[in-house]
Amino acid sequence: MPEFRQNMVSKEWVIIATERAKRPDNFIQEKKVKNSLPSHRADCPFCPGNESMTPPSLFSIEKNGVWSLRVVPNKFAALQSHLTTQRNREGRFLKADGFGIAEVIIETPVHNHTIATMGLEEVRNTVLTYRERYAALSKNERLELITIFRNYGEKAGTSLEHPHSQIIATPIVPPHVRTPLYQSQLACDTFGDCIYCGMMEEERRQGVRVVKETEYFLVISPFASRSPFETRIYPKIHRSSYATISDPELNDFAAVLQETLKRLSIGLNDPDYNYVIRSAPIEDTNVKYHHWYVVIVPKLTTPAGFEIGTGIYINTTLPEHCAEFLRRVQIQ
Amino acid sequence: MPEFRQNMVSKEWVIIATERAKRPDNFIQEKKVKNSLPSHRADCPFCPGNESMTPPSLFSIEKNGVWSLRVVPNKFAALQSHLTTQRNREGRFLKADGFGIAEVIIETPVHNHTIATMGLEEVRNTVLTYRERYAALSKNERLELITIFRNYGEKAGTSLEHPHSQIIATPIVPPHVRTPLYQSQLACDTFGDCIYCGMMEEERRQGVRVVKETEYFLVISPFASRSPFETRIYPKIHRSSYATISDPELNDFAAVLQETLKRLSIGLNDPDYNYVIRSAPIEDTNVKYHHWYVVIVPKLTTPAGFEIGTGIYINTTLPEHCAEFLRRVQIQ
Repeated sequence: MPEFRQNMVSKEWVIIATERAKRPDNFIQEKKVKNSLPSHRADCPFCPGNESMTPPSLFSIEKNGVWSLRVVPNKFAALQSHLTTQRNREGRFLKADGFGIAEVIIETPVHNHTIATMGLEEVRNTVLTYRERYAALSKNERLELITIFRNYGEKAGTSLEHPHSQIIATPIVPPHVRTPLYQSQLACDTFGDCIYCGMMEEERRQGVRVVKETEYFLVISPFASRSPFETRIYPKIHRSSYATISDPELNDFAAVLQETLKRLSIGLNDPDYNYVIRSAPIEDTNVKYHHWYVVIVPKLTTPAGFEIGTGIYINTTLPEHCAEFLRRVQIQ
Repeated sequence: MPEFRQNMVSKEWVIIATERAKRPDNFIQEKKVKNSLPSHRADCPFCPGNESMTPPSLFSIEKNGVWSLRVVPNKFAALQSHLTTQRNREGRFLKADGFGIAEVIIETPVHNHTIATMGLEEVRNTVLTYRERYAALSKNERLELITIFRNYGEKAGTSLEHPHSQIIATPIVPPHVRTPLYQSQLACDTFGDCIYCGMMEEERRQGVRVVKETEYFLVISPFASRSPFETRIYPKIHRSSYATISDPELNDFAAVLQETLKRLSIGLNDPDYNYVIRSAPIEDTNVKYHHWYVVIVPKLTTPAGFEIGTGIYINTTLPEHCAEFLRRVQIQ
């Protein structure tokens, strides 16, 4: 029997379409070219030796003059740092100069690594760098929101093979971000606590959608997953922003992020994916009602007209089955 | 210079990334298999002679016992008509039985037609049928929202080649639909008129994004287009629901819908697309603050992590250029 399920924060619904149900192993990808990439490419702007193909580093992790991670301004940035935050009217329409900051985190010198296969030290450097850059950008008073994300593979919207994450900081908090904040604020005004903390308590109690629990993190296939193998990582300590992640949490986060991506990569044969770290806006860095988290969306299905029209996603796979599948993946 | 532009109804922003700008003709698709489809396939459930492969017709247009259009229940429906609208709690989570109605409109007996290439009579039958089925479904008091849409091509989420549209009627109005309704209601409470009517007035005044204007319809590349060649068709007479479209408007709508899809198909070499008719919820069929419209989204780009995280779409093409490109397409 199909059912509607509601995301308890955003209040959006999904349809879990059991009549069309697919087993999790239907989503195992065919073998891809990615598996046979070289470790270095002479024409890759992110490979060592080609540093002049990118703008100079904003931040780097080096040892004996050799870098293991670099952060550079995005050469093809959608937003630019030298503009104003001026809003302008064009008749009845509102626009604003395209001010913002876009950075690229080159996670490793090795062209054919991925978060799932690189050394844990490299993942640690990456997530540490997220915190460093978040801190640096949040000092800019013209910025309101910092979004950290990773596009992996062509279906996820990237053509650059070399392992990298991105940060885009905007002077605007869009409704897509603000609306769920209103909802979680209202829930907090009503019940006095964080709706995400309550959700985690419920997920732990029910257990069936838990992929992994560590000292500091909970990994789940969410109750109202919009697509097969949507996976979320929540910090167990209430924090509204990635800005305030502690060192012990950071170490655990590196391990849990890598392990989760390994489970997806090994279980589904290296699917393309996006992940996003959702923090509260900069000025709400310490609030009771928001709780930062990572959402990982493997690109396994295509949203169509119904999803565009209603925002109700039709998901053909039970999150409970996805969690079970991911728990069983042999990662060693 | 890149700029933010705001959708004046939903208040969502897009980034028009002129630094990455692509000319409209960058989006012309490569030649596809679709062009060489047969006019009949023995294994197609929607081709004449295979009527037993679908459930019986709910509605049809026939002449001398031969059908030219059929509406059938969706055999692989995500929702089912025999269930209840019961909400159920599962701990802190909310779910509901998957009640709803899903129908398929088989628009023509001819396997290899498309809206862009079929006879105008067939398009007229299709849009007339939209109204018929809308009227029939809106009598069901357990339904709240009727979404009419068309998925064309694999990138748009369909594997069925035979020309068809779909209707899904749900017992739920999701936040994705409700939130812009709040916005347009607030605008109406403030200014006393329909925000869509005002937007159309502004688009006509500026002119640069108008693709076509007919007696009853305005076709535009919206000011805050989320992706290249997003195209919208608005009725010039204020109506909040497709349910109330008049006969003269219906005739004009058939012609304008076909012409718009022809412009996209000829100009961009038959791209995959979704279109959706956005009407107000059934109980708001006659309200001042909503205005029905069609949004056509050709599948030319891939939303990535930033879009998932913020809802801010990065559009690399100016809507003004898309409108100009579409106006210039030779459709005869």
